[in-house]
Amino acid sequence: MGNIITLTTDFSTSDAYIGAMKGVILGINPNATIVDISHDIEPQNIPQAAYVLDKAYPYFPKGTIHVVVVDPGVGTERKAVIIKTLEAFFVAPDNGVLSYVVENRIEAVSITNPRFWRKPVSATFHGRDIFAPVAAHLSLGTSPHEFGETISSLVAFPCPRPRVEADGTIIGHVVHIDRFGNLITDIKRSDLPETNLQIEVKGHSIWGLSVSYAEGGELLALIGSDEHLEIGAENGSAAALLGTKVGERVDVIRSSRGTARCAPT
Amino acid sequence: MGNIITLTTDFSTSDAYIGAMKGVILGINPNATIVDISHDIEPQNIPQAAYVLDKAYPYFPKGTIHVVVVDPGVGTERKAVIIKTLEAFFVAPDNGVLSYVVENRIEAVSITNPRFWRKPVSATFHGRDIFAPVAAHLSLGTSPHEFGETISSLVAFPCPRPRVEADGTIIGHVVHIDRFGNLITDIKRSDLPETNLQIEVKGHSIWGLSVSYAEGGELLALIGSDEHLEIGAENGSAAALLGTKVGERVDVIRSSRGTARCAPT
Amino acid sequence: MGNIITLTTDFSTSDAYIGAMKGVILGINPNATIVDISHDIEPQNIPQAAYVLDKAYPYFPKGTIHVVVVDPGVGTERKAVIIKTLEAFFVAPDNGVLSYVVENRIEAVSITNPRFWRKPVSATFHGRDIFAPVAAHLSLGTSPHEFGETISSLVAFPCPRPRVEADGTIIGHVVHIDRFGNLITDIKRSDLPETNLQIEVKGHSIWGLSVSYAEGGELLALIGSDEHLEIGAENGSAAALLGTKVGERVDVIRSSRGTARCAPT
Repeated sequence: MGNIITLTTDFSTSDAYIGAMKGVILGINPNATIVDISHDIEPQNIPQAAYVLDKAYPYFPKGTIHVVVVDPGVGTERKAVIIKTLEAFFVAPDNGVLSYVVENRIEAVSITNPRFWRKPVSATFHGRDIFAPVAAHLSLGTSPHEFGETISSLVAFPCPRPRVEADGTIIGHVVHIDRFGNLITDIKRSDLPETNLQIEVKGHSIWGLSVSYAEGGELLALIGSDEHLEIGAENGSAAALLGTKVGERVDVIRSSRGTARCAPT
Repeated sequence: MGNIITLTTDFSTSDAYIGAMKGVILGINPNATIVDISHDIEPQNIPQAAYVLDKAYPYFPKGTIHVVVVDPGVGTERKAVIIKTLEAFFVAPDNGVLSYVVENRIEAVSITNPRFWRKPVSATFHGRDIFAPVAAHLSLGTSPHEFGETISSLVAFPCPRPRVEADGTIIGHVVHIDRFGNLITDIKRSDLPETNLQIEVKGHSIWGLSVSYAEGGELLALIGSDEHLEIGAENGSAAALLGTKVGERVDVIRSSRGTARCAPT
Repeated sequence: MGNIITLTTDFSTSDAYIGAMKGVILGINPNATIVDISHDIEPQNIPQAAYVLDKAYPYFPKGTIHVVVVDPGVGTERKAVIIKTLEAFFVAPDNGVLSYVVENRIEAVSITNPRFWRKPVSATFHGRDIFAPVAAHLSLGTSPHEFGETISSLVAFPCPRPRVEADGTIIGHVVHIDRFGNLITDIKRSDLPETNLQIEVKGHSIWGLSVSYAEGGELLALIGSDEHLEIGAENGSAAALLGTKVGERVDVIRSSRGTARCAPT
């Protein structure tokens, strides 16, 4: 059980909400190390929160406690849960924000024991009154079982995966656009043919993979830091260049022309 | 006296100002736990800073030191002050940013003793040269009296409160709009009649209170996490929907129609 | 060797990148104190990162480790370096982001020893796989020599300095625009004549120096917190008022009219 507690929310940093959550955590565990993953998730954007969490949590030490509060259903019947995996704990509403981690769970608990909550519990701010104190008590070594009963079923959306056509064409989609305007797809390195790639996105073709953003050309494709196919632009924003949004289709075609540009010949 | 120092400023996080303040604090007290409440206060917006601080500070452990630097009068005759309450210390310019806490003070000191300042003191950045080192020394256990003489009078604006008409109508105002576009008013739960509410804002009527944002309807009213009346929109921004700003009038009328929508019948 | 590690990047806080870097650091040194200087550097803006770092790092305690990741050339032949000065360590790509500190170096090392890297090393995210683990190991006391061989030549752009004409006119430029719209120039206090200043910027004239932002007038000039000449506006944005950008020319002329406005007479 670690002392690190991460926060991923759609609260932004312009209100008092994050401060209140951190105050509650430090009041219970003054030695907690609180790390902000992001508070800039779009309001109520559950898939984005799930994605950002999934790209950050694997890099934290074993036992880290990850709190996610993107919670449009706060105050309704939706459950609050603790998920334990081999590496970490997750504390969040049961609304899909843990979609990428639920299948790795070795334990899941529904948070029902009010003993660890801040009272009175606001119907609109469980981040402060339930998730923060539960995470703080977890960080002090309280067993997940103390917080409620084990549950077997959890809300999760299917994690995006590309479709492969009969002719080998891979039909994927943009799952995230980062700060630089890079388009990150659901196509993994291991999905791709070894050579001869042609990538089609919004009427543009890219032949082969670049190694880095600086060795591409105006529009380029490469394997990003999460081992997924990514569309970028040298010193610019591929998203702005193409006018794309999350969900945009990206096709990978086997092509006789598409030898890897940066591979030795 | 605690080791937690919070920061609330209008500096944003795109300049070097916050980094410089944190460096100064850690140079004096390497064990300080520094917590950002918000650096996204609008430039020079003293009422907003006072409000955000007031909604965050009560959740921190006893002895926490709260530094507020929204300081359009930096370098002029305005005082710099330490306020001590039963729960916390506040270090700020004496310009109204502590309006919500001054009445709870058990002690107030004008910061005049240059012994604890960083030198030379810039006329434009007391955050770095006065407030940060004073807070760091406070966190090491230095008594407030060491920093200057006790003062009895402090700058404070009247905290916004609704007016009640002869017919019982409550006339309040929007005091804050949060990241989600929720309109938070100066009307407390305890100001409201038990039932039969009708809320009027910018030509729209809302009957009764919802319990949560998800159980409302396009436009809804509820008691927010700070026990104040709040106007929200299900999965949307009430501020955008209504085109409202801080200061907008909100009326609460006793109505035969307005039974609480979510109460059991 | 200190436990403080600062981060200055162009990653923003809306992606998972900063979280991943912090996770890697805390996995290696759980006692590291991580301080964000800024993650809001414009994408790929090396001069801006160099500037912001230079205005923040001198305020941190001796031995602080400053990590800068603004790295358009990631994955190419550009070096990764550690620079040691009398006060601090710097870990960054060798692309100019350390331009303001290279001349103070007492040691510089090219990071070539993969022993301290996270593997596999992504070609697009050295922040996570090289800079973060190297900084964490430095904070544990590993000598810079362990990370690679000493180098003598480093990439640096000339730090902006004003030109002085034959008639004494100082021709400087805006090097940074802060959150408040203040225009910070490359002209130092020590460059200025003692009295009788006239400042010309974008067709506007300012006579003499103010002491504070509140004692100026619509448009004003003063010595900012970094001892440089700064153009501001009382309770407003000089940048918006003048429509200026970084690079704008600012002239200082000796004038019979320009006695300091706020000096005693």
